[in-house]
Amino acid sequence: METALLNILNFQSLIATKAARVCRAAENDPVIEFGLRRAQGVDGGLSAARATYIGGCAGTSNLQAGERFGIPVSGTQAHSWIMFFENEREAFEAYAKAMPNNCVFLVDTYNSLDGVRRAIGAAQWLRSHGHEPIGVRLDSGDRVALSVETRRMLDEAGFQNAKIVCSGDLDEFTIADLKRRGAKIDMWGVGTKLTTGQPDAALGGIYKLGAVRLPGDIWRYRIKISDDPAKTSYPGLLQVRRFHQPDGRFIADAIYEIDHAVSEPCVIVDLQTEEEREIPAKTEYSDLLVPIFRQGELVYRVPTIETSRERTRQQLSSAPSAILKLKRPRPYKVGLEKSLHELRSTLIAQAQEQRDGSK
Amino acid sequence: METALLNILNFQSLIATKAARVCRAAENDPVIEFGLRRAQGVDGGLSAARATYIGGCAGTSNLQAGERFGIPVSGTQAHSWIMFFENEREAFEAYAKAMPNNCVFLVDTYNSLDGVRRAIGAAQWLRSHGHEPIGVRLDSGDRVALSVETRRMLDEAGFQNAKIVCSGDLDEFTIADLKRRGAKIDMWGVGTKLTTGQPDAALGGIYKLGAVRLPGDIWRYRIKISDDPAKTSYPGLLQVRRFHQPDGRFIADAIYEIDHAVSEPCVIVDLQTEEEREIPAKTEYSDLLVPIFRQGELVYRVPTIETSRERTRQQLSSAPSAILKLKRPRPYKVGLEKSLHELRSTLIAQAQEQRDGSK
Repeated sequence: METALLNILNFQSLIATKAARVCRAAENDPVIEFGLRRAQGVDGGLSAARATYIGGCAGTSNLQAGERFGIPVSGTQAHSWIMFFENEREAFEAYAKAMPNNCVFLVDTYNSLDGVRRAIGAAQWLRSHGHEPIGVRLDSGDRVALSVETRRMLDEAGFQNAKIVCSGDLDEFTIADLKRRGAKIDMWGVGTKLTTGQPDAALGGIYKLGAVRLPGDIWRYRIKISDDPAKTSYPGLLQVRRFHQPDGRFIADAIYEIDHAVSEPCVIVDLQTEEEREIPAKTEYSDLLVPIFRQGELVYRVPTIETSRERTRQQLSSAPSAILKLKRPRPYKVGLEKSLHELRSTLIAQAQEQRDGSK
Repeated sequence: METALLNILNFQSLIATKAARVCRAAENDPVIEFGLRRAQGVDGGLSAARATYIGGCAGTSNLQAGERFGIPVSGTQAHSWIMFFENEREAFEAYAKAMPNNCVFLVDTYNSLDGVRRAIGAAQWLRSHGHEPIGVRLDSGDRVALSVETRRMLDEAGFQNAKIVCSGDLDEFTIADLKRRGAKIDMWGVGTKLTTGQPDAALGGIYKLGAVRLPGDIWRYRIKISDDPAKTSYPGLLQVRRFHQPDGRFIADAIYEIDHAVSEPCVIVDLQTEEEREIPAKTEYSDLLVPIFRQGELVYRVPTIETSRERTRQQLSSAPSAILKLKRPRPYKVGLEKSLHELRSTLIAQAQEQRDGSK
């Protein structure tokens, strides 16, 4: 179980988190996942597409993910499409004829602004045949200057509704920077860094045994000791209580042991500093962990991907904005409920006594 | 084709390269791939196991990879095995009884040196029953001091052949550092950073169309232009010629167009600096690219994984050691054969003329 659970939870949590960061940087613009060609395996790409959609992306260019998970699919041409034809004009025309309602012209194969001019030509052809282009895609170059000029050209040609899609080595930081510098971009195609989670290619979640059930339904707590106090494990049957404001905004999370009553008011001991923090009595809360399997039976109603996505959106909107900042985010307050902290300290001391006794 | 090829080639090349680096740092010690729990998807883990074996690893803890690809499997216990029992001694004894010929005792659940003492107890039990332990595994703490002391304890107890396995957040740099500082380690279990390629989670290989075949078997060259000269593509039907010394050591690689004769002596134009380098006439060489499919038919004899692994080993032993160094490696010399460089320059100029003409 350990390896399978960690494989699923670590990777998809990493990528959903990355997607949430990228989408936040893009403000209200749609972000499309474009990363399959650089994903870690076919399944790495599929799982990533699922996780990016839950994390807030609007779609994926991965058709299998679309088919399997019901994620909206979206995409444009590859450079190889454009290069297959004698020139860019022919390539755009062929595409417009084949997909008249789904045209986002990739304009940077030879020169981006020349490409925009030719895309406008193809868009005029589309309009004269009763269709509207979706827009153009900028994939390289100075995307601030290019997008401003592209917007001007599209507007002047009467394509005020045509979108400008931007792609090419993007992440949350480059998107925030392009926006800050005034880029006129409506939609973002983000690949490698989104799908692989760069610069963090792995989330370091671990699996530790908290308790063992002995015959007679007796639970025995377990703890792994480490020289590094933060790596000593948490014993018991654990639950996480999230305290929140009446409007839903998060205050702090307390990890507690389910057979140790949480005191009122709840006292949370910080994981790093051991500082104590009291949550006022009567503060609203919800417990986050729910059983999935009991004795081998699925006891959980698996949510649809849309439900998971909506839940992510709601949770992010309730998180303190200071913890979501790209630069110098404040850590979220998470700690051990005081009686769990005491249980852990007791077990550490017992382990130490046993050691001393056995010497 | 583009996305599938890039997905396979980028990721597995990245991981095979990482494995080669890690194995080189480990000198002649076996390296086992331990990364499935942090891999990017199940398939990311499987593909990584395959690529690490080709890159030089001695085995994997991924049983499915063992079954599917014939890679030797290897592993020890998880901490959860140890913690399931009332104490470490019981855990080791139970393991020794269940797997008497495959015991690598994980010693750091409570205290590494206490664990080594208990592992020696279990090893004595094994020996008294006609078996030998394989060794112990250190997974945390100061692995220089711990391994030196563990070696002393094992030797003193008469287990000179017992191996010390080291794991825990390793990569080529930490392994080189542990070796330099005198760690007494015989075998390395490397997980997250190997299986995900950290810090580079993706290799940036691209697919560009080099030529199009028109009716009448006429090939037309294609080029993608970019403001960044290094990102302008290479036109034509390409091959790579590797020049080498009589003993097999590589000198340089030249990318050439198969319908443009390579001059004798061959002149290679550097990709970045455009400097020219002449390879003396009569230098030995081999052409690296081989056809895999022709007109939809597989025309390649797929090598066994052992053949691929041996080829990697041979190639690495023929590479200049200066390019394989972990710190400040020298770049390997790769460039365009002069007539390809001229073809490319001509096509760039033609594209520029067409642009100017169309203005």
